[in-house]
Order: sequence, then structure tokens, then C-alpha cells
Amino acid sequence: MGRRSDSKTRILAAAQELIELRGYSQIGVAEICTTAGVPKGSFYYFFASKDALALAVIDTQWESQRADWERILGSDDPPIDRLRRLTEVIVSSLTAEPIAGCLYGNLALELSNERTETIRGRLREVFDAQVDMIAQLTGPDTARAVVAQIEGQIMFAKLYNDIRRLDALWPNIRVLLGE
Amino acid sequence: MGRRSDSKTRILAAAQELIELRGYSQIGVAEICTTAGVPKGSFYYFFASKDALALAVIDTQWESQRADWERILGSDDPPIDRLRRLTEVIVSSLTAEPIAGCLYGNLALELSNERTETIRGRLREVFDAQVDMIAQLTGPDTARAVVAQIEGQIMFAKLYNDIRRLDALWPNIRVLLGE
Repeated sequence: MGRRSDSKTRILAAAQELIELRGYSQIGVAEICTTAGVPKGSFYYFFASKDALALAVIDTQWESQRADWERILGSDDPPIDRLRRLTEVIVSSLTAEPIAGCLYGNLALELSNERTETIRGRLREVFDAQVDMIAQLTGPDTARAVVAQIEGQIMFAKLYNDIRRLDALWPNIRVLLGE
Repeated sequence: MGRRSDSKTRILAAAQELIELRGYSQIGVAEICTTAGVPKGSFYYFFASKDALALAVIDTQWESQRADWERILGSDDPPIDRLRRLTEVIVSSLTAEPIAGCLYGNLALELSNERTETIRGRLREVFDAQVDMIAQLTGPDTARAVVAQIEGQIMFAKLYNDIRRLDALWPNIRVLLGE
């Protein structure tokens, strides 16, 4: 049992790393298994397909992040402090170089055809959840602008491979909040 | 001469369409030539490699867009009206369904490894130029926030395949401008 669940965790970690480094389309199941150090048979024990793995990678990351978001945005601090803290946590999760960016945003712009509609649907659910959580404090229109600002600025941090690009994120969000 | 330059134009148009539909990594030179209706030999007459073609696709699109940006942002209208007009032109260029999104943003998030550094460098030049042009009216910090907002909102228009997502773009930019 220990080894089995360890294999699944290793496959998920390898997939996330490879997606971040090279993009989803470029990687194959064989390479994921080699990186994870598990036999290819193990892969299909845990995942029906590469797309099923992508959904699991998204879910695993969002499950962890959602807990952070709920804790921070649900605190008793003033709303502006909660949103500042959320921004800090997002930025601090992105500092490893090269800057990998946002898994959801990367996949959203890489995957554009019907074959990937299941994954795109899951990404919409994640962004819907993010907007809903922020909207509790700001209303929906501002929440969408905030999430768009986060994704746009992370795009530039990734493209320029420069975390300092995100120094402006909180000041920009403050302006969007009308503060 | 007429046929030769027509082939180049057809290759560029086919490449742009295929990149938008499926992503850059997923397409090959053979498919681009089939879509363009030109023999594969023609391809290498015009382009040294698929990466050289990608640079040409970026340059062709930005050459045309830059002329629009310069005309609009360089007009005698009040700055706020110039920025509103620019936003309108950007949105109106994105309405074809499925929403393909921004070529530069799509490539920025799809391409993340060293092999694609040449293309990533060209994308940085395009975004630098966009920020510089807007910064003439707003200052650099606000200009970067505006371009990030544009890219983030276009990401969502593409992911949700819904142009109405961009109805909020101008109101959001107004807030970033402090208007």
C-alpha cells in the first residue's frame, strides 16, 4: 500500500514538473514514468489516460491551494488585508527559477481544441471557484478583474523569467479594488 | 514572382491558423504545407525552420497591429479616448469563434523551455513595444498593468470561448488608469 500510493504521488509530481518545463502536448506517458521512476504498467493502474492524469494534476494542485485560499480569505482580518495576504502567498509560490507560471493559465492557453475540452472544463471550474471566493469580498466584476490581473502578471513573470515582475501585482490589485 | 510571394503568404496564414487552433508544438511543417496548399520544398525556400516561421508569423501580425496602435495612440484625441479606442480595436479583432485569443500570449505560455528562447525573446520585444507605446500616455507601471489586464481577460475569453468576457475590459482598464 505504501509503495503503491508512493508511485501515484511520484507520477503526479513528475507530470506537474514536466508540464511546467515543457508543456502538456510535448510530454508522453513513457517519459512521465521514466521521470517518476515507475514502470509504465503502474501508470495505467492509477490513470486511464494522459488526460486523466492532467485532471488529477490540476485537482491535486487546486485542492492544496483552495485550502490556503479558504483559510486566508475566510479569516477575521479586514478584507483588504486578506486580499494582500492572498497575493503574497500566490507570489511566494512562484519564485522557483525558471519561473513556471500558473499551471491553470499555462494549460488554458496551450490547450485550445475540442479534444482537450474535458481539461478546459476543469480549468474553468478552478477559475470559477477562485472568482467566487474573491467575489465574496469584492463583488464578481472586480473579482474577475483581479484574477485576470494575476494571470496576466504571472504570464509576464514567466515570459521574462523575472519574479520582480510580480512586485507590482499587489499595487495593481489595490487599484482594481478602488483602494 | 506573384505565385512565389503568394505561397509565402499562404504558408504564414496557414501557420497562424494552425497555431491558433492547436498550439505551436502540435503542428509540423508537412501539415502547414498541406493546409497552405504548397509543396514542402516551397517551405524551405522561404523559411529555414519551423521556428523561423513562428518568428515570421509573430512579426507579420505585430507589423500590422503596431500600425493600428501607433495611429490610435498617436492621435490628437484625449488620452483616455485613445486608450478606449485601442481597447475596442483589440476586442473587435478577437470575435471569430472559437475565440483564438492572443497569439503572443498563447505562445508565451505554451513555450517555456530553452529550445524556444528565440521565440520567447521576440515575444518579449512585442510586449515591451506595447508597454512603451501605452506608457507614453500612462507611465510604465500603469502600462504594464493594462497590458497584463488585456492578456488576462483574453485568456478567459479564450478558455470560456465567450467574447462577452471582454465587455469588462474597458471598465477594468479605466479603473487601472485611475479614471
